[in-house]
Amino acid sequence: NSTLTNAGTGSNLTLEGTVECDASIMDGEKLLYGAAGCISGVKNPIDLAHLLLQKQGEGKLSLGRIPPSVLVGKGAVQWASKHGLNMSEQHDLITESSLSTYRSHKRKLEMHSNRNSKKRSKKEATTNGSKQFSGSESDENSSVDSTSTSVDTEGMVAKDLCRSPAPSTQSAIQDTVGAVAMDCHGNLAAGVSSGGISLKQPGRIGPAATYGAGCWAHNWKSDNQPGVAIATSGSGEQLMYTSLAKECARCLQNQEDAIKGMLSGIKDKFLDSEFLEKEDEKFAGVIALRQEKQDASDNVELLWGHTTDSMCIAYVTSSQLKPKVFSYIKVMLKRGIGD
Amino acid sequence: NSTLTNAGTGSNLTLEGTVECDASIMDGEKLLYGAAGCISGVKNPIDLAHLLLQKQGEGKLSLGRIPPSVLVGKGAVQWASKHGLNMSEQHDLITESSLSTYRSHKRKLEMHSNRNSKKRSKKEATTNGSKQFSGSESDENSSVDSTSTSVDTEGMVAKDLCRSPAPSTQSAIQDTVGAVAMDCHGNLAAGVSSGGISLKQPGRIGPAATYGAGCWAHNWKSDNQPGVAIATSGSGEQLMYTSLAKECARCLQNQEDAIKGMLSGIKDKFLDSEFLEKEDEKFAGVIALRQEKQDASDNVELLWGHTTDSMCIAYVTSSQLKPKVFSYIKVMLKRGIGD
Repeated sequence: NSTLTNAGTGSNLTLEGTVECDASIMDGEKLLYGAAGCISGVKNPIDLAHLLLQKQGEGKLSLGRIPPSVLVGKGAVQWASKHGLNMSEQHDLITESSLSTYRSHKRKLEMHSNRNSKKRSKKEATTNGSKQFSGSESDENSSVDSTSTSVDTEGMVAKDLCRSPAPSTQSAIQDTVGAVAMDCHGNLAAGVSSGGISLKQPGRIGPAATYGAGCWAHNWKSDNQPGVAIATSGSGEQLMYTSLAKECARCLQNQEDAIKGMLSGIKDKFLDSEFLEKEDEKFAGVIALRQEKQDASDNVELLWGHTTDSMCIAYVTSSQLKPKVFSYIKVMLKRGIGD
Repeated sequence: NSTLTNAGTGSNLTLEGTVECDASIMDGEKLLYGAAGCISGVKNPIDLAHLLLQKQGEGKLSLGRIPPSVLVGKGAVQWASKHGLNMSEQHDLITESSLSTYRSHKRKLEMHSNRNSKKRSKKEATTNGSKQFSGSESDENSSVDSTSTSVDTEGMVAKDLCRSPAPSTQSAIQDTVGAVAMDCHGNLAAGVSSGGISLKQPGRIGPAATYGAGCWAHNWKSDNQPGVAIATSGSGEQLMYTSLAKECARCLQNQEDAIKGMLSGIKDKFLDSEFLEKEDEKFAGVIALRQEKQDASDNVELLWGHTTDSMCIAYVTSSQLKPKVFSYIKVMLKRGIGD
């Protein structure tokens, strides 16, 4: 429930100033997956994802109907309410900080739009008023927008829009919240929760509600197939196109050396992926647990890697009273604890 | 726009009697994917998926924002309307046949619910009125439902509910509509469109809007990597858990023999999948194009396979005036044309 994170309360706002959250969870023992997408009005969307997972574990609905794995939008919120989850009014999920960020980003977008509109009018005037462009001024996807601003500026503003808060707010970096965990029985699980990117189109589903993209968990099966739990964050559509959580899990399971597996996941399956060939910037962060069995006890490693400038990690074990939190900046593929 | 299909007009209705469609499309050349989920009010949801794909091909939005790949619900419908797609009132998408099927299924559900409710009252009475079960009577997922009906009956009714229309309607089988195609330049594409299962929970996202599950397309790259286009239908959550379209594509690309590839896709990746270990019945149908290059010309095979009792196939080539339609019943993995 921290308002510093981009999940639930304090989430990034959409183009319309609303909160729409994605969340998902995977159970490494039962290999079940529950996801909630485009959720407005549920206090903790991850609870909804978890309940969807649990209900699948209980078997079929009456008359043999199959319980849903992924629910989105209004129908999902109604289901959550009917099943007694904590609900929250939209305005209670919006914080001063998220609103201030939204206003700042929206101003930038309007300024950009006005500039383009002026350029357009000028160009139209010089061509004797003939209509040069299809699409309305508010159509952010018209070809005008992408050609009339230099690529450099676009990139800079994009970073500003999607990855950092407005100057007036705290300088916290707001990203997807991911968690990987192992219980005392050696069962693995992974989950992610996200408010999505700032100024996203309402209705947009991100990796946190996409099977294989945001989280993955698979219990230990044999010496040749170690257990893995993965959570990802980064540029949403890129994580979705590469099914990064699932592919990273495969790499960690197939490689004997954990670090080599992680490197292969991020390098081969993301940076060098044929699905991202045309992308000029590729952003991903991955946290992972890799579990091996030795003499009937669990040997677990926590690993992380990122192509982003920074990544914040926290961990807690059963022997600690408080979680440890640390942030890595411009460090690629560091090995974490091994216990 | 055929009202005989379970897509767009004539779609299966949700538990609330509404139409909510999923559709997606993948471009094998650019490896782009567009999907629309839980769509009410767009005449052809596949058009929305296609436009999402096209817009991604046009590059970033203003200020470097990344265009969405998947849109769902109300936000998606607003986006579709803003971009000039054909809209349709909800009631225009409901046909006499789909309404009649809905009413019949709903009656069965109510009868089942009433029977259980009576059993419950009786049991409660015999245990001196003590509350035996958690959850309300309308909670279809309560453990009562799954234990008080025999598994056989559940299975039979499930088939009746999800896979065949009501007796009073035409005896057409209403399933997901999938298409695989190659254009004159040898580019592959695949798409699926579906109204989902009858009486589904509103908000439920099915395989037709899930990356890797409903469709997949990948152009020819080398002799070792033939081109493939895949569309699937069947039991939705099972297709999603196995990412069947993507995994079948992999099998068809990795095997030199097309039929062996298809068999491996359906057998190893679906029927024997560890993700479906606890499922008693597994339903999938797959159609595929597999493209090889020989002396600079395309050698294309159309393949299909299904674990369902029946599957309907239609094909058209540039030399035909009309599509050929045929239906396969209880035939597993037949090879189609090779031209």
